[in-house]
Amino acid sequence: MSQPSDKALVPFVSVDHMMRLVHRTGLEEVLRGLADYIEADFRRWELFDKTPRVASHSAEGVIELMPTSDGEVYGFKYVNGHPKNMKEGLQTVTAFGLLADVGNGYPVLLSEMTLLTAMRTAATSAMVAKYLAPKGATTMAMIGNGAQSEFQSLAMKAICGIDTVRLWDIDPAATAKCAANLAGQGLRVVPCASAEQAIEGAQILTTCTADKQCATILSDNMVGPGVHINAIGGDCPGKTELAPGILTRAGVFVEYPPQSRIEGEIQQMPQDFPVTEIWEVIAGRKAGRVKPDQITLFDSVGFAIEDFSALRYVRDRIAGTDLFHPLDLLADPDDPRDLFGMVQRAAPER
Amino acid sequence: MSQPSDKALVPFVSVDHMMRLVHRTGLEEVLRGLADYIEADFRRWELFDKTPRVASHSAEGVIELMPTSDGEVYGFKYVNGHPKNMKEGLQTVTAFGLLADVGNGYPVLLSEMTLLTAMRTAATSAMVAKYLAPKGATTMAMIGNGAQSEFQSLAMKAICGIDTVRLWDIDPAATAKCAANLAGQGLRVVPCASAEQAIEGAQILTTCTADKQCATILSDNMVGPGVHINAIGGDCPGKTELAPGILTRAGVFVEYPPQSRIEGEIQQMPQDFPVTEIWEVIAGRKAGRVKPDQITLFDSVGFAIEDFSALRYVRDRIAGTDLFHPLDLLADPDDPRDLFGMVQRAAPER
Repeated sequence: MSQPSDKALVPFVSVDHMMRLVHRTGLEEVLRGLADYIEADFRRWELFDKTPRVASHSAEGVIELMPTSDGEVYGFKYVNGHPKNMKEGLQTVTAFGLLADVGNGYPVLLSEMTLLTAMRTAATSAMVAKYLAPKGATTMAMIGNGAQSEFQSLAMKAICGIDTVRLWDIDPAATAKCAANLAGQGLRVVPCASAEQAIEGAQILTTCTADKQCATILSDNMVGPGVHINAIGGDCPGKTELAPGILTRAGVFVEYPPQSRIEGEIQQMPQDFPVTEIWEVIAGRKAGRVKPDQITLFDSVGFAIEDFSALRYVRDRIAGTDLFHPLDLLADPDDPRDLFGMVQRAAPER
Repeated sequence: MSQPSDKALVPFVSVDHMMRLVHRTGLEEVLRGLADYIEADFRRWELFDKTPRVASHSAEGVIELMPTSDGEVYGFKYVNGHPKNMKEGLQTVTAFGLLADVGNGYPVLLSEMTLLTAMRTAATSAMVAKYLAPKGATTMAMIGNGAQSEFQSLAMKAICGIDTVRLWDIDPAATAKCAANLAGQGLRVVPCASAEQAIEGAQILTTCTADKQCATILSDNMVGPGVHINAIGGDCPGKTELAPGILTRAGVFVEYPPQSRIEGEIQQMPQDFPVTEIWEVIAGRKAGRVKPDQITLFDSVGFAIEDFSALRYVRDRIAGTDLFHPLDLLADPDDPRDLFGMVQRAAPER
């Protein structure tokens, strides 16, 4: 039979391709590139179709679809969140995503996004910290040393210039893993024995723990003036990490309020709790940090536009390389009304 | 580097695989199989998570995500609808879909669905006609001879036992294409010069035209007593095919009222216009056709559960065959908390 036409073939970036992209480019360079694409899209935030993600909840976890569009390109991500997976040797979060041409609806990129989501989450955190963290921040406390911790650490180094991470996790083995992975990456790494110890001298506090429950990873008295809190782990209904008292003392910045009020730390607060949309800070419309002793809090839940930006980055990076595989995903008959004829002509010879 | 584990590999059914599945199994047998799976899922309709599709509309068309879940398996379809595509040599509709395990969120099947949607749409129409069409129906008028027409004709033959199709399209070339494709398939094929001529002697009237506008493909006086109308083409806001007078005379059956009232023929009617959910007929809870001279109308817009059933069918059929390709879609580190270490260990040797 004849080969499918170019229109029928969708570039597919596998996990292996993505890892090769990282090694060829350098992880910190990828994180910087992702941050640039995300920042550029946050600047044109108003252009995007925005909708809270479409979530299918079950007892064990959640499966979500996160669509968005800038009017020319459409993107969506499939992502699951199953905290119990880790105990079974599976990823808590796996993901893949797609870009399509709004003009004709044809997909133009399919990509793994388990790795890409880890990188875009870290790139978003660091890009936002560039706007909100105190000037001259050198030290981050990394509370929760799971799959996201190394990416957060290196993104804060590459984009915000920190030189020290102080690690803590309820499981010492996670801290040991993170410390081993970060060895030789140009960061001073300080494993700590408690959350209190980890935040000593840190200007940036990143929380990223995985329990699907309301927890108090940071209590009110642990947070002193002038720090920036980067709260990653409170990202679905019933899952928070911060004591409410911290929220009332902080300037709180979010991605998309209708989603964040359901999924973020601010789900603990009244519906009219004041927040600033971070895109307005990036676009120069609203103030970020207003004084050195202010506590700033990025209550991050992850938004579809960040995935869109990350897929755009990948699409641009793989052009002209061998970092993708053309996937026979779309039927493309010579005559578009003749799908049946296409099938008939593909009959094996008898 | 080491190969990804089984958990990381998602079976992918390409367009070529799907065509080989059709040729190996026989199209009519595939249509019957799909109808059986769809019928089985309609019987357990109440079990499913149901939500209207998530649509992203643009001037040129629409891109939709259609998710559903039966509590154990999650499925969604990506599908576009761009009527102008045909003029540019592209498919009006392309699609792909996915099944995942609700328990851990891992995808278990990725499949082309341009062909599969064409087949599941035809299988759904014929499965419903089995319940609603007059007994002993032998003849279908097929109005609109585009990509769906051959599949509709053969599904009605395989599942309802018709022996004659009467074809009409505003474009004679489309009718000629459909007639040529159906030659030798065991149906008497009668190309007609008008819609009026096509419906002469037909007990089943199928309408499937593609304009994104309100049209009157069937006017009130064209529809006599006792026929079954299978209305496929009225499937998005602002797109209908039937005169409202037909709807008031007919028993109207739909898939999922919240979606059908927006997208189907009944978008022309008041919000409280009475309809019967077809699953209730299939489950034996409501009457289908109540008398021989009743006009029955299946106002079909396509629903996520039909895609779910179709993907289930494909998953079961490809097991143990060579009709898929294992796709490196999911990152699967040995230690699920160690995504970063997985990337590091994949570094090329220097």
